[in-house]
Amino acid sequence: MESSFQNSKVLITGGIGFIGSNIAKRLVDIGAQVTLVDSLISEYGGNLANIEGIKDKVRVNISDVRDEHSMKYLVQGQDYLFNLAGQTSHVDSMQNPFTDLEINCRAQLSILEVCRKYNPEIKIVFASTRQIYGKPDYLPVDEKHLLRPVDVNGINKMAGEWYHILYNNVHGLRSSALRLTNTYGPCMRIKDARQTFVGIWIRNLLEGKPILVFGDGLQLRDFNYVDDVVDAFLATALDRNADGQVFNTGGDERINLLDLAEMLIECNNGQGSYEVVPFPEDRKAIDIGDYYSDYSRMNQEIGWTPRVGLREGLTKTLAYYSEVFDKYV
Amino acid sequence: MESSFQNSKVLITGGIGFIGSNIAKRLVDIGAQVTLVDSLISEYGGNLANIEGIKDKVRVNISDVRDEHSMKYLVQGQDYLFNLAGQTSHVDSMQNPFTDLEINCRAQLSILEVCRKYNPEIKIVFASTRQIYGKPDYLPVDEKHLLRPVDVNGINKMAGEWYHILYNNVHGLRSSALRLTNTYGPCMRIKDARQTFVGIWIRNLLEGKPILVFGDGLQLRDFNYVDDVVDAFLATALDRNADGQVFNTGGDERINLLDLAEMLIECNNGQGSYEVVPFPEDRKAIDIGDYYSDYSRMNQEIGWTPRVGLREGLTKTLAYYSEVFDKYV
Repeated sequence: MESSFQNSKVLITGGIGFIGSNIAKRLVDIGAQVTLVDSLISEYGGNLANIEGIKDKVRVNISDVRDEHSMKYLVQGQDYLFNLAGQTSHVDSMQNPFTDLEINCRAQLSILEVCRKYNPEIKIVFASTRQIYGKPDYLPVDEKHLLRPVDVNGINKMAGEWYHILYNNVHGLRSSALRLTNTYGPCMRIKDARQTFVGIWIRNLLEGKPILVFGDGLQLRDFNYVDDVVDAFLATALDRNADGQVFNTGGDERINLLDLAEMLIECNNGQGSYEVVPFPEDRKAIDIGDYYSDYSRMNQEIGWTPRVGLREGLTKTLAYYSEVFDKYV
Repeated sequence: MESSFQNSKVLITGGIGFIGSNIAKRLVDIGAQVTLVDSLISEYGGNLANIEGIKDKVRVNISDVRDEHSMKYLVQGQDYLFNLAGQTSHVDSMQNPFTDLEINCRAQLSILEVCRKYNPEIKIVFASTRQIYGKPDYLPVDEKHLLRPVDVNGINKMAGEWYHILYNNVHGLRSSALRLTNTYGPCMRIKDARQTFVGIWIRNLLEGKPILVFGDGLQLRDFNYVDDVVDAFLATALDRNADGQVFNTGGDERINLLDLAEMLIECNNGQGSYEVVPFPEDRKAIDIGDYYSDYSRMNQEIGWTPRVGLREGLTKTLAYYSEVFDKYV
């Protein structure tokens, strides 16, 4: 994998965000020429602290994926596009459905159109989400599960994903999509729950406040440490078997939220507490109950498997935020 | 059904179009107060000839569903909204994906938002399409089939449909969606194939030109005569079992395109001819092969069943266009 990316030109939208910046670090390490696009909108995932160690080794372009002119220029000459820019908050999407539409649908179409016109040889990997499945009919959820999103964000991400597959199938623009399950690790947003609830849990823990567990805390989830997700993006970009495909990521450990809270406290040297509280109304309305993924399709097609266990990943994550907490809150 | 709609206030978007105008006629007959919204964009389905017989008995409002201010005003005080305005051409959606997005996604969100804010008691029935299933895995296609649209129009209609179901589930705005199979009958667009290929076939037949059958002509389809589809919309509006539901329409006769061409010629007193020609490139890329629906869910839930046979329906359709041909070409 390393030699394949050496000297290759890579564009990452949402490149100063959580997963984007982690991909960037890996690619810089293996000698790729990386351009990061990010709007740095304060409610989203971009944070310059995420690229502290690589900022002189990448090209940083602050612009919004809704800016067609910027994107038209930036995609030219690139070998790969990791397309991660997005509005990620489910609750925000219900309050501002049009903003979510502009970013998660219209900008995606526009990115694909400029690639088709100005760089049809590029390979694109799109960050989709397990949210588009909605409340599962069966577990673990595989890619044959019906898509029944329960919030505006899920609907728009579903459309955004399908544009990518369509442009692969009809226009021959090589594209793949990863339906990410809960991803956590260094560089995630911890200021609030807009990106992942694990973020706000870690913030509370490190501030000495109780973690708030919604509902009965028995909802099952699976998790991926961000390094494993970086692997998934890179492998998907390189493997022609992935063209036009949609793959679930997923974790081997399934855990309910109470147990996760306890594990997180253990990883924090036993320091911390949690409280079980009722769902806020706006979250209850769009909750999906238990969810965990079947990632066997990606395993079979391109050999991906997650390698970092949950306890190890949480410990690394806590270590990161203990050190740089101030830059994230 | 008749008494339920008497004196009720009904708004129909796309109301001067094919199915919208047929719903309007039925509702006028049974004493509803009907408002039609239509943009009369020349590439779409609106045609003033469609409402020739009822124009003095309805309120006609020429505006575009993308006009939020117009929609905000028009939805107020209505009991029912039949939401049929849309961009319907698959080929056009590939060439102008943003226009399709504005009409089939953004305007739908905007209609739902104004209903939520200004008329939360309204009941909405949305015209979806079998196109969102894409190329079927199995036949007949029921509502459990995966959605894998093969063109931009299919993706955007899928999102538009899901906004309706979401607003039902989360905001309590009563909404249903009908995934229409091929619908034909008086008032369809026959100028070209933008709405249905049956339209252009009828035009050619009545102009003494050969019907063009694409591919090998063996693709199976099912059809609904428009009166049956009007029944489906009205029954869905009235039945609380339909709230939040998605139903397929479908026909009992499955027929390949060669046989359909022959039947149409027979219905035209044996006058006419057809030619089998290769798919144009832009259509081949988005063709879905065989398709026919399983409509048993709608039958079980609200008792709908189609009643007009294909031969009878085609004969009626030809009779209509023989009389008013000039107003449609």
